[in-house]
Amino acid sequence: MEEIVTRPYRIRLACLLILLSGFCVTVSWGEERARVRELGIEIGHYPPGEWNAITDVTGVKVGHVTLYEGKGRHAVRTGVTAILPNDDVWQQNVFAATYTQNGNGEMTGSAWVDEAGTLESPILLTGTLNVGRVHDGVVQYLIERYPEDHVALPVVAECYDGGLNDADGRQVTAAHVIQAIRQAKGGTVEEGGVGAGTGMIAYRFKGGIGTASRLLPAEEGAYTVGVLVNANCGRRENLRIDGVPVGKQITDLMPEWHRDGSIIVVVATDAPLLSRQLRWVAKRAMFGVARTGTFSRQSSGDFVIAFSTAQTVPRDSDALTLQVEMLRNDRLNPIYQAVVEATEEAIINALTSAQTTVGRNGNTVYAIPLDRLQILMKQYGRLAERGSP
Amino acid sequence: MEEIVTRPYRIRLACLLILLSGFCVTVSWGEERARVRELGIEIGHYPPGEWNAITDVTGVKVGHVTLYEGKGRHAVRTGVTAILPNDDVWQQNVFAATYTQNGNGEMTGSAWVDEAGTLESPILLTGTLNVGRVHDGVVQYLIERYPEDHVALPVVAECYDGGLNDADGRQVTAAHVIQAIRQAKGGTVEEGGVGAGTGMIAYRFKGGIGTASRLLPAEEGAYTVGVLVNANCGRRENLRIDGVPVGKQITDLMPEWHRDGSIIVVVATDAPLLSRQLRWVAKRAMFGVARTGTFSRQSSGDFVIAFSTAQTVPRDSDALTLQVEMLRNDRLNPIYQAVVEATEEAIINALTSAQTTVGRNGNTVYAIPLDRLQILMKQYGRLAERGSP
Amino acid sequence: MEEIVTRPYRIRLACLLILLSGFCVTVSWGEERARVRELGIEIGHYPPGEWNAITDVTGVKVGHVTLYEGKGRHAVRTGVTAILPNDDVWQQNVFAATYTQNGNGEMTGSAWVDEAGTLESPILLTGTLNVGRVHDGVVQYLIERYPEDHVALPVVAECYDGGLNDADGRQVTAAHVIQAIRQAKGGTVEEGGVGAGTGMIAYRFKGGIGTASRLLPAEEGAYTVGVLVNANCGRRENLRIDGVPVGKQITDLMPEWHRDGSIIVVVATDAPLLSRQLRWVAKRAMFGVARTGTFSRQSSGDFVIAFSTAQTVPRDSDALTLQVEMLRNDRLNPIYQAVVEATEEAIINALTSAQTTVGRNGNTVYAIPLDRLQILMKQYGRLAERGSP
Amino acid sequence: MEEIVTRPYRIRLACLLILLSGFCVTVSWGEERARVRELGIEIGHYPPGEWNAITDVTGVKVGHVTLYEGKGRHAVRTGVTAILPNDDVWQQNVFAATYTQNGNGEMTGSAWVDEAGTLESPILLTGTLNVGRVHDGVVQYLIERYPEDHVALPVVAECYDGGLNDADGRQVTAAHVIQAIRQAKGGTVEEGGVGAGTGMIAYRFKGGIGTASRLLPAEEGAYTVGVLVNANCGRRENLRIDGVPVGKQITDLMPEWHRDGSIIVVVATDAPLLSRQLRWVAKRAMFGVARTGTFSRQSSGDFVIAFSTAQTVPRDSDALTLQVEMLRNDRLNPIYQAVVEATEEAIINALTSAQTTVGRNGNTVYAIPLDRLQILMKQYGRLAERGSP
Repeated sequence: MEEIVTRPYRIRLACLLILLSGFCVTVSWGEERARVRELGIEIGHYPPGEWNAITDVTGVKVGHVTLYEGKGRHAVRTGVTAILPNDDVWQQNVFAATYTQNGNGEMTGSAWVDEAGTLESPILLTGTLNVGRVHDGVVQYLIERYPEDHVALPVVAECYDGGLNDADGRQVTAAHVIQAIRQAKGGTVEEGGVGAGTGMIAYRFKGGIGTASRLLPAEEGAYTVGVLVNANCGRRENLRIDGVPVGKQITDLMPEWHRDGSIIVVVATDAPLLSRQLRWVAKRAMFGVARTGTFSRQSSGDFVIAFSTAQTVPRDSDALTLQVEMLRNDRLNPIYQAVVEATEEAIINALTSAQTTVGRNGNTVYAIPLDRLQILMKQYGRLAERGSP
Repeated sequence: MEEIVTRPYRIRLACLLILLSGFCVTVSWGEERARVRELGIEIGHYPPGEWNAITDVTGVKVGHVTLYEGKGRHAVRTGVTAILPNDDVWQQNVFAATYTQNGNGEMTGSAWVDEAGTLESPILLTGTLNVGRVHDGVVQYLIERYPEDHVALPVVAECYDGGLNDADGRQVTAAHVIQAIRQAKGGTVEEGGVGAGTGMIAYRFKGGIGTASRLLPAEEGAYTVGVLVNANCGRRENLRIDGVPVGKQITDLMPEWHRDGSIIVVVATDAPLLSRQLRWVAKRAMFGVARTGTFSRQSSGDFVIAFSTAQTVPRDSDALTLQVEMLRNDRLNPIYQAVVEATEEAIINALTSAQTTVGRNGNTVYAIPLDRLQILMKQYGRLAERGSP
Repeated sequence: MEEIVTRPYRIRLACLLILLSGFCVTVSWGEERARVRELGIEIGHYPPGEWNAITDVTGVKVGHVTLYEGKGRHAVRTGVTAILPNDDVWQQNVFAATYTQNGNGEMTGSAWVDEAGTLESPILLTGTLNVGRVHDGVVQYLIERYPEDHVALPVVAECYDGGLNDADGRQVTAAHVIQAIRQAKGGTVEEGGVGAGTGMIAYRFKGGIGTASRLLPAEEGAYTVGVLVNANCGRRENLRIDGVPVGKQITDLMPEWHRDGSIIVVVATDAPLLSRQLRWVAKRAMFGVARTGTFSRQSSGDFVIAFSTAQTVPRDSDALTLQVEMLRNDRLNPIYQAVVEATEEAIINALTSAQTTVGRNGNTVYAIPLDRLQILMKQYGRLAERGSP
Repeated sequence: MEEIVTRPYRIRLACLLILLSGFCVTVSWGEERARVRELGIEIGHYPPGEWNAITDVTGVKVGHVTLYEGKGRHAVRTGVTAILPNDDVWQQNVFAATYTQNGNGEMTGSAWVDEAGTLESPILLTGTLNVGRVHDGVVQYLIERYPEDHVALPVVAECYDGGLNDADGRQVTAAHVIQAIRQAKGGTVEEGGVGAGTGMIAYRFKGGIGTASRLLPAEEGAYTVGVLVNANCGRRENLRIDGVPVGKQITDLMPEWHRDGSIIVVVATDAPLLSRQLRWVAKRAMFGVARTGTFSRQSSGDFVIAFSTAQTVPRDSDALTLQVEMLRNDRLNPIYQAVVEATEEAIINALTSAQTTVGRNGNTVYAIPLDRLQILMKQYGRLAERGSP
């Protein structure tokens, strides 16, 4: 077990507890967690960016507000996450597109994004029953910041967090939304049970926010592709990590209560893609989801939004036309591959980063055990540099 | 002028006032308004139902809450309208589909309607900036009525009412939403500046809620098709009524301030249509919109939702399958024609029913003058039974 | 009949030539035909271009091959029409998009147009059962012209001409296709029963090819929008011309045999539109169709393809990106209006240009009578300059 | 090597040859091939049907015509494959839907399938440049079989076979098409380089036709899901088999010439699905494709068509409506999972069944070596029952 490479002491302690007790008596404070690359698992071909996060795309910022209070029937395990393409997207729109794999969910604003081919608001993620309040919060933010008349059609996407959270309580307020937007920042992105991910469950492990990025080689434009997911999808038995059927091997550590959920994927790139191309990129993100094993269940709201920061479209202009740069279609393949890889890794990062969480009515959702994961990956021929085939 | 057929005294008075004053000193209490058929204008081929309203489809109910208060900068001219397919659509879903002609707007819940092929919530119409609050209001309604766990993805569709209303104020509350749902009823539907239509402007006349219906002959199933619109679309010069270029002839009575708007169309039928067929029906509703002259402007959020009350799909069931009745595709044409006709008439009903309204910052939006309209229709060869060619 | 205003001498001369040469033995020799503007009917707001044809968009060419032979069961009344965006569209692709209003028909190649956002082949129109052979003809044309390896996915769109033509005979060969492409030219476009329009029926009058164009004012970019239709759609009773219910007034002159048909609309513009925008333009073309009265019947194959000649995308390039010009979204409205107007006029041009045709099994499809049409338009308040209101 | 379970002698001989010669001097007659389950590789959870083929869905038939002649520049390596939902689908339509993942290709007839929600013709697969001729062949077949008037809009889907075939020659004739339809049969389906698969290349190994099926348990309706693919997609380095990165391990055996290709997936089921549901099933088929490693390259034409044999819709009927059975939406998940599994397995079956083929200009496309594949699967922890972890 000495190959475990990250934050080893507490993980060993957790392993010991597991070994001793036969089940994980976890509390959320005790666990050490890691990103998937820290475990020696390298998904895909292209290298990640500096932060291996959506924020590797210059200008993109992420802000979380996490609400975690109380226990029992009214336990609050929810939040809101804001993704900002730039610092003034209302005035400086970015090319964008959405894609719906399975529509058992909501992404408000998507009709307008797809009509205009551009995005004009921050992207907000939250729990299902908060959608109205978060929508209203973005409207209030826009009214306060831009006092002139305006027609606001913000993008708010949800997954259901009622497994851990008192969802009926709709605890996210306009103030939380504005706070998430205002404190959004670049650099490292917190993952797992934070922001909109606070109450999420994926593959019946604790899920939530995950992120990853890929850098293309110079001859392909040296572009960056970043992905952020809110992972709330999948049944345990379907979980695959880099092709290894992990979910068939770790069949314990099940939540007492679970409802099949959804996934939201946000894709950012600095490649000069137009909306049609971004739609194709968004479709490929679902290939990354597919690789983690889910087949997009009927109860899943699987939505993707992709945007490019390469250029902006000013809201107001006297000009009749604008000059835009467009990646040639025949150069799209590296972008497609990058988004598949980054999406797959972002989902696994959500799993390996999230901590065991006790929520509503004492429902415990376990974190995927990193030691067992590493052992499995070895058995299945991965983690090659440490002695496997 | 003796041919004017409806509520003639007050109309004559209004005409007199117009003649005397040179402009319409209207206030909303003084005008007599009429539905388009009361003016002798008969649009289309099929006869209307009893109420010539969406409520002619058995079980469909409509509820308005109108907010009309104050003047000046903070004048409130907004509201909310609820359309209920049946009395318990959450438990007894109806087949449904949506269609987006131009996506500069919002219809929440449409992804789920189109995925499931069914509608499970009331349909709410309101002003753009109220969307979040109305969405939250429907969620609250569902939580209160159905206390068990649930994932609510309600349908809320908007048009922008900032021309007459202090839109930033977002005056519609959850309580208003619940009130609109609870007081929804069958029979006559109020039209014009009521409910979600309170602040709407169409073809630069006062617009808002309009409705109409069509009955198919027995050999086509004796089905009913009902339409309700919230009309906020179109430039004056494009207005056509039953093919007559009215907007080119009535070029005065312009609002001081106007922003190009949108239209929401709700189609109900008791024909046994499945979701795919309802989507085709929804597309045809836009042909009815086209006949009124707009070309679906870039700034327009033109959304349609169509549902069938012919049968319901129970939310919960142990059954694996269900038996459904489906109209043969080759029998769809009468439905298509009916929805085109009813949509055209519903929009004109909104215009002829709405009253001149003074709103935000004293902006006056005039009602279409019925006497001048009748004169025009005669000149252009309509109102045939009264002496035209 | 003295109101007939159009170029009578040349048409009579053409008829004479036809009589002498033994071709057109139909009653069509007696008929005077005209374009709708020659009848004094002016549809819409913007002025037409020089030719009032799709060829007003610089570089666009149209070629017809008309097959008109024999009578009785095996009467041949079919053909093929080629529309070329430029002289080498295989090497110099143009931005393009398609739209399907009702899919009871075929437009091959549309998946690739919509994926790439560009068009790389000529557009071919023909009768339904000829699709395979015309498709093969375009492939042969491309193989001959470009001997290197290639994946050809040509655009071939059809309407059913079995009402006048022995459709089962599939008389259009690869040679006809290549001929239509090679002889395509700018300038005047033949209309009515020519090329793919030879066997078409619209509103139960003789239909077929029609075209029209619109010029935008300088402040809107001075762009040109051109439309060409193959009109095979509609029931008589639904026909409207500029809002006048002509089909309800001319109820005689019915074909003995008719099957509800389809319409194909080709839109060209020199405005710098990208594919997403061209898709919205294509959708508006159906508003022009709607204004002629049909409601897009269930048996109709109603397809639109729109392209922009403003710029080309070279097939092969070492470049990673390209610079493109894009009309701002908020300047799209004049384009939308222009395409609605031009489509409406193109359909009516098809009707007023086409000649009465006797086809398969002696089935006679009458041309719309221009004198009666003019009288009707006057009665309904149009043709104002000739004394109507 | 004694664990190799299928037809071992010739495989060992092939291995010996490989070892001796350093490269595979293969000729297509010498190779033993196997289906993936015969190699001990079991993909997914549900069991296959009797034939592990699309023909496990009762009534579905498959017919191949293989054209394999000559060598050098004009080598013929092409063909056509017909899939019949039932014996008279023109008269007895089946519910159906299509889905396009990446539209660099053609599936004619898809607009009509998606409009009607039903399929009325056999499905034909072939090489890209044959599309027109195959389309014409189906039309001829329909004309001969059903002499009355008809509007034929057949489904023909293609992949490009120019890597092995003289594609420009378009060797498939109407007679071949009719032959493929007429000799279609149930039971075992030939796989690999047969019919439309003759010239196909997948993951730079020899690809082509593959099939598989899944049986659902009784409590899920005991339905069968069958898939047939024409696999022509993917780059070697992306190939994954049941999660194992085979393409990164077998980097030799590359064709001299290759062009990125496409995949067509045909899904059949006897579950009572309506068209909307079949569209969702078709989308899931792409998840099966994703699991084999491709990310749906820009040059790929990735099309799916899904149909249900559970019930038929008669072409002609005096009835206004029909009664149909519909699987409840909340019972769709097993179908989704089954189609993902069967699609993945069908693609791998195409690879393991196809034989090394020498084609145009001597271009050799190698079959995936089964012995090396088995060794790899063991190293990566699969083939568990034979001693791996």
